[in-house]
Amino acid sequence: MRIVSADTGGALLTEDYEPVGLIATAAVLVDKPYRTATLSIVKYGNPFDYDMSGRQAVREEAFLAVELARKVRPDVIHLDSTLGGIEVRKLDGPTIDALTITDRGKEVWKDLAKDLQPLAKKFWEETGIEIIAIGKSSVPVRIAEIYSGIYTAKWAVEYARENGKAIVGLPRYMTVEIRPGKIYGESLDPREGGLFGEIEANTEGIGWEIYPNPLVRRFMVLEVWRE
Amino acid sequence: MRIVSADTGGALLTEDYEPVGLIATAAVLVDKPYRTATLSIVKYGNPFDYDMSGRQAVREEAFLAVELARKVRPDVIHLDSTLGGIEVRKLDGPTIDALTITDRGKEVWKDLAKDLQPLAKKFWEETGIEIIAIGKSSVPVRIAEIYSGIYTAKWAVEYARENGKAIVGLPRYMTVEIRPGKIYGESLDPREGGLFGEIEANTEGIGWEIYPNPLVRRFMVLEVWRE
Amino acid sequence: MRIVSADTGGALLTEDYEPVGLIATAAVLVDKPYRTATLSIVKYGNPFDYDMSGRQAVREEAFLAVELARKVRPDVIHLDSTLGGIEVRKLDGPTIDALTITDRGKEVWKDLAKDLQPLAKKFWEETGIEIIAIGKSSVPVRIAEIYSGIYTAKWAVEYARENGKAIVGLPRYMTVEIRPGKIYGESLDPREGGLFGEIEANTEGIGWEIYPNPLVRRFMVLEVWRE
Repeated sequence: MRIVSADTGGALLTEDYEPVGLIATAAVLVDKPYRTATLSIVKYGNPFDYDMSGRQAVREEAFLAVELARKVRPDVIHLDSTLGGIEVRKLDGPTIDALTITDRGKEVWKDLAKDLQPLAKKFWEETGIEIIAIGKSSVPVRIAEIYSGIYTAKWAVEYARENGKAIVGLPRYMTVEIRPGKIYGESLDPREGGLFGEIEANTEGIGWEIYPNPLVRRFMVLEVWRE
Repeated sequence: MRIVSADTGGALLTEDYEPVGLIATAAVLVDKPYRTATLSIVKYGNPFDYDMSGRQAVREEAFLAVELARKVRPDVIHLDSTLGGIEVRKLDGPTIDALTITDRGKEVWKDLAKDLQPLAKKFWEETGIEIIAIGKSSVPVRIAEIYSGIYTAKWAVEYARENGKAIVGLPRYMTVEIRPGKIYGESLDPREGGLFGEIEANTEGIGWEIYPNPLVRRFMVLEVWRE
Repeated sequence: MRIVSADTGGALLTEDYEPVGLIATAAVLVDKPYRTATLSIVKYGNPFDYDMSGRQAVREEAFLAVELARKVRPDVIHLDSTLGGIEVRKLDGPTIDALTITDRGKEVWKDLAKDLQPLAKKFWEETGIEIIAIGKSSVPVRIAEIYSGIYTAKWAVEYARENGKAIVGLPRYMTVEIRPGKIYGESLDPREGGLFGEIEANTEGIGWEIYPNPLVRRFMVLEVWRE
């Protein structure tokens, strides 16, 4: 099964570990044996001007996933929104009202569906590929989350090269290593069965340190500086 | 403390990872240091004709646990049903009504208790051994779950030898290895302190692969084929 | 960021693994990279005469944390009480009523605040250091929990030297090793990013074994005996 998914993660942090804004939306193509991506793309946000409500994230994830899916033609697209695996092209008002989610969630999805339902319907009509709102249960969604953390590390390297230093928070229980010419990342939860990723990056002249975020258990902080 | 417990797990899957039915109920004898079983037995279900409501599972687990307990005379029997550790022989109507579980759970247990309460009462009168509904808190129940996964792998090996191939889903966060003459399995959650199991099996002429189930995070898929 | 925190953990167990009472309150100073303590102190309870309601624990943790903080002057004190990070010096009646916690929790905190609010206010006026009720989200609180387990092992060694044997339960998913002249402990959850601790202890002439508590999944039992 070839699956495309997308997720947003990684936050710029202050010296006191307060989040400023999210950094990276990653879309990935995942194929058997479902432990890493065979292809990935990224869209960087502006962490200094970020809508933290979460609505921006889901919309950009959907559009980025469709962008990747146009090229690689997967069997299905997984979105990080936990609506029980429903097809996004079917999300009209009455269907959203019938979901067993909070009233707030219904309101958000009625707004989101204005853009995403036509997107999903059009993409399905053109390609036969469904976009499903499967959420946290999906391994490709978790792999996209790990890639959003790896791209966040790349962003931090580039930011530090220009500005001297960057402190970023990674997505939940994952870590990264900055290696010569590449950035490697992996899940810290062995129950997930060994999920990891790697991208190329110019890592010359960069020092780094990774350690637990003291204020948010199970999340790691990456500090990067120009040497 | 010598404890007998039982649990059901492992599912036959389609090529698209959809569950067809459950495969194995395992009963185990667990003794100090409580990391594996000193004895195990199995009852295979028919995954092509399986009642997925969960009622069949608890009933078969209780009967299989009592079958093993008759031979090995443990101190106590643990069932995988989370009723706060109550003795099953005491489960009459008013007691079930007083439990802090859902109305649906009460209905199920009133039905189950018709068979299991007399079974537990008779077994206790004969042997003094209690059957308690302790559920997920019990380490022996988790060890039984791991053995149900190991026996599922054995079932898959035999099924593949006859039919060419099998795809099965293992119980939550555990993995297996098919070794010469045996099948080894272990928990993927290090917080559990190193739980594992092993059984003998004819593994000749069998190829296998294990990988994360892309649709159900933290669950592994085992594919087995005739070589 | 230099953080002081405190937590209580470790229980004396009967031969049947029933808890008798809690053993150790530990306060720790944690500094970057936030994986262990640079300093720790302990206050032992009397497990044979212990108020298991939890009220005793929070009060003693607060007083022990302030005792350590007087010496080391951290930036902030973290208490193991999950009130969203609110400053304890601000906990008057109306503020407690406005918290989104259970009515029972409000009652407990109204009682606790009688001692702790003046303590926090006085300490803040003297030093400018806030005491915040951040709870499980805090890594230093988890490190304090790990130290409470390490000190529990030390208590067990001393108890066994006098009385022949001790069986204790450690805090959630952590383990210890009794080494020559020291006791080492670490988290069993790799998602936490490698939290550990070590203290000096006279460990001569002591045998020990660690294994999963069969009745409480993800908790370990330590047995210690005089050799």
